[in-house]
Amino acid sequence: MPHFTSAVEYGLHCLLFLVEHPPDRPAPSTRDLAELQCVPVPYLAKIFTKLQKAGLVEAAQGIRGGFRLARAARQISVLDIVDAIEGSKPLFDCRQIRTRCAIFEDQPPAWASEGICAIHAVMLQAEQKMRAALAAHTLADLAQRLSTKAPPAFEEEILTWLDERAAGRRRRRTPPKT
Amino acid sequence: MPHFTSAVEYGLHCLLFLVEHPPDRPAPSTRDLAELQCVPVPYLAKIFTKLQKAGLVEAAQGIRGGFRLARAARQISVLDIVDAIEGSKPLFDCRQIRTRCAIFEDQPPAWASEGICAIHAVMLQAEQKMRAALAAHTLADLAQRLSTKAPPAFEEEILTWLDERAAGRRRRRTPPKT
Repeated sequence: MPHFTSAVEYGLHCLLFLVEHPPDRPAPSTRDLAELQCVPVPYLAKIFTKLQKAGLVEAAQGIRGGFRLARAARQISVLDIVDAIEGSKPLFDCRQIRTRCAIFEDQPPAWASEGICAIHAVMLQAEQKMRAALAAHTLADLAQRLSTKAPPAFEEEILTWLDERAAGRRRRRTPPKT
Repeated sequence: MPHFTSAVEYGLHCLLFLVEHPPDRPAPSTRDLAELQCVPVPYLAKIFTKLQKAGLVEAAQGIRGGFRLARAARQISVLDIVDAIEGSKPLFDCRQIRTRCAIFEDQPPAWASEGICAIHAVMLQAEQKMRAALAAHTLADLAQRLSTKAPPAFEEEILTWLDERAAGRRRRRTPPKT
């Protein structure tokens, strides 16, 4: 099983749609984003609750609600997003078995638990390297790399799709004429 | 849940007992090692089967069997051990959801799946950094760090404990006199 769940992939992809979203257009809801990215709606809603709690997105004002980034995309690292979604999830859980040696007869000497376990230290170093690599990329970097691949019309197509959804919802909300 | 299971901790700690084990003394069995380190015997046996398959330990000749390191401890990295025990376990499983955008209407354009997904690329980089950190430490390094902590008598105590086990087993194997 991979260390990061699919929630990280879903969250990251859907956040990308918020990066260049114009402030004067309705903020997309998690339903909009989930259906746009073809991921499960309730699952994405839970992911966005976590992103909101972590201060990475904020609920937009207005009747439609929806979400906006809570700070500039260049100030949101991939690590921020992973931590928000996955919580504290260490690479390695040290159970201090260094103190459990038959020779100690249930009375481990002080030296056996002194400082950090050498094995744990290596794992923590590996984890730090991994986290530093995730911290070195921002949501803005990812969006920029995506935009170099996508044709210029793509961004506008996304906005049109979202606008049509918003208009559709507004129409549906208008009570039928009697 | 941590990325690496307790098998990695158990395996690494038990392998440390093999690092300085003199070739003229009986090679410890997985039962010896498990009981010395107070970890479950069948679980450790499975771990050692994996370590043997990966060419990190080898069965010792002789009636007692047991295990020895298959190569010098300085030629066995922590990454070798982790890979042997955990197998292929990526940090992140890219499901290519970049091709699943409602706008594509089930016909993703070529650019959407061109090259590696930008998100996946960041995850792979993080994984590489983590693996490089694990590869930078050997079993010999860990043993050396442990030996600076443990008192000089510890190594001999371990050998005596293992010898007594071996002698006890030999005694048990001698049929009772009639």
